[in-house]
Amino acid sequence: MVAVIMAGGSGTRFWPLSRASSPKQFLHIIEGKPLLRVTYERMQPLFSDERILVVVGADHEAQTRRILADTGVQVLVEPFGRNTAPCVGLAARYAAWIGVHEPLVILPADHYIADAAAFRRAIETAGALCAEGGIGTLGIVPTRPETGYGYIEAAMDKPIQDGVYAVARFVEKPASSVAAAYFQSGRHFWNAGVFLATPQTLLQEFAEHMPRFAERLQILDTVFGTPSFTDLLASIYRSVENISFDYAIMEKTRQRVFVVPVSCGWSDVGSWGSLYEMRRGDEGDGDGNIVRGDAFTKQCRECFVVSEGDRFVAVLGLERALVVDTADALLVASLDSTQEVRAVVEHLKGHGREKLL
Amino acid sequence: MVAVIMAGGSGTRFWPLSRASSPKQFLHIIEGKPLLRVTYERMQPLFSDERILVVVGADHEAQTRRILADTGVQVLVEPFGRNTAPCVGLAARYAAWIGVHEPLVILPADHYIADAAAFRRAIETAGALCAEGGIGTLGIVPTRPETGYGYIEAAMDKPIQDGVYAVARFVEKPASSVAAAYFQSGRHFWNAGVFLATPQTLLQEFAEHMPRFAERLQILDTVFGTPSFTDLLASIYRSVENISFDYAIMEKTRQRVFVVPVSCGWSDVGSWGSLYEMRRGDEGDGDGNIVRGDAFTKQCRECFVVSEGDRFVAVLGLERALVVDTADALLVASLDSTQEVRAVVEHLKGHGREKLL
Repeated sequence: MVAVIMAGGSGTRFWPLSRASSPKQFLHIIEGKPLLRVTYERMQPLFSDERILVVVGADHEAQTRRILADTGVQVLVEPFGRNTAPCVGLAARYAAWIGVHEPLVILPADHYIADAAAFRRAIETAGALCAEGGIGTLGIVPTRPETGYGYIEAAMDKPIQDGVYAVARFVEKPASSVAAAYFQSGRHFWNAGVFLATPQTLLQEFAEHMPRFAERLQILDTVFGTPSFTDLLASIYRSVENISFDYAIMEKTRQRVFVVPVSCGWSDVGSWGSLYEMRRGDEGDGDGNIVRGDAFTKQCRECFVVSEGDRFVAVLGLERALVVDTADALLVASLDSTQEVRAVVEHLKGHGREKLL
Repeated sequence: MVAVIMAGGSGTRFWPLSRASSPKQFLHIIEGKPLLRVTYERMQPLFSDERILVVVGADHEAQTRRILADTGVQVLVEPFGRNTAPCVGLAARYAAWIGVHEPLVILPADHYIADAAAFRRAIETAGALCAEGGIGTLGIVPTRPETGYGYIEAAMDKPIQDGVYAVARFVEKPASSVAAAYFQSGRHFWNAGVFLATPQTLLQEFAEHMPRFAERLQILDTVFGTPSFTDLLASIYRSVENISFDYAIMEKTRQRVFVVPVSCGWSDVGSWGSLYEMRRGDEGDGDGNIVRGDAFTKQCRECFVVSEGDRFVAVLGLERALVVDTADALLVASLDSTQEVRAVVEHLKGHGREKLL
């Protein structure tokens, strides 16, 4: 198999740590290294470096190459982000061009998985099936009635093999009553954005569902590895729709789609609040406080303090507060409001304060 | 009369804004000017500049002279702080030396008074009585059962004149049940640390209750206004007890002591929390948030945000939180825990981080 790590994200949910110049996949928020690096290391036991392909935006190419400088992975550069469908199409075209016939394992660079071994076992199961065709996906066994994720509904009555099920349908983020029902059902799993299929299967899908894009991708075969590649890809990207792989392909495909349910301590690390919940077990003190950097807490419970500037931070008498201090911006929030960080970014955009983005 | 403004405080309760180099009386926390300046301006309608004497520590002399550069006030410099008794003794000695026989009005530089006119009227009432001897004090009519202040108990049954009463006793900060009783009693007033007496009365008191100090003070008469003054005063201060005027004199005096009760919107501005309560009416938005400096709040209630560094501050989803951001230190606290700021200062001392103090 070949791993395709999609590192093109430009998220703002970890503002003020994440910036346009340094989105989530580059932050050292877990294990003291960039999430991209953690993702790479997670795949290492299963993939030799030559079989790992990282897709990244031109803006972040240098940073990506630096983080993976000691490895032999391949880096494929998108001119700019166009969501996941173009990214997967490009990766599939490139993989086919270098002669890959085995399944690609396509995964985001900025998720976290506590039990990497369980994750890899699920990948192996799905990969083995994909080699014969179809599209595989992982389904994370829900641990709470989460409304922030999309779900995969499995046809549990007809297992394809032990622990592998046909996908009945993909569902968008549910309302909370629906999420509660999904959590109980035993046949709904979180969509972690991990997909497996051979390059040939994927290109067939693009030919069917994004035919003009697929046609233009074909021309790349004549320029891969040449100086003309960058310009040609840019012209293709300028005209392609900004659309997710889920929406463009997965929800429409007539391929056999199957899901491998797995419990592996997965998180999309979607907000400061979710990062806190993930880490409090390992990093929290007796009162559930996580303190990173030069900080002092007193009479605090379940606080998350990140001091990345060179300032001393004191936190007194607070519960479930987040403090993120950087050189030029400071965020103080309730850990239960961290999804509102987006509003800060919108505020800054609206006031022309690009330097802080 | 002559006003003696005691500006020798070295408080840490407004850390990280207040530092050893810039205690509370120098902070621009109200009306956009230093509290010392606000105090000076409060006295102006009653005192010409030559009749205002500011007593300050050597460390803060330059700062004090700068703040009052456009005035003609006199500045008397203490070598270092020794609490209020030595300060009052020095001021009384100096006043006597320059020929003052009228009452001195001794008051702290770092309190706030909303109704300055009412305050001045009380001063005038007390001053008129003091001219004939005795020691006058103001008693602030309590607006809540405060446990953080000392109280003055008045003998309400025998008014000295309309609105002036003999002091029955001074009481230290009470327990909360006692404070509740005081609040109900109608004869307990907050001790605002404002005293009135002629220099002659005061020196007589020092001769009785701090005789060795009084004796040494006398020697100053030979050096006031000469270069020898500084060294001689330093030697006197090195040996004098660090003690408050209340404790050394007021609680022991056999002089006639009287109190003028007054309602003047007084606050000792004792903590960030009390500053917030004082200012929310004037500065608060519809949700009770006070925002000073470059900051953005969303879904916040009763928050106090002070951005004095050059950083952008975002606050999300919090209630009754205090955020004080300065160039090298940040405080985030519950507005109901701001008396714990002292613990931060202790922590910094204990870890040898003098730069942050």
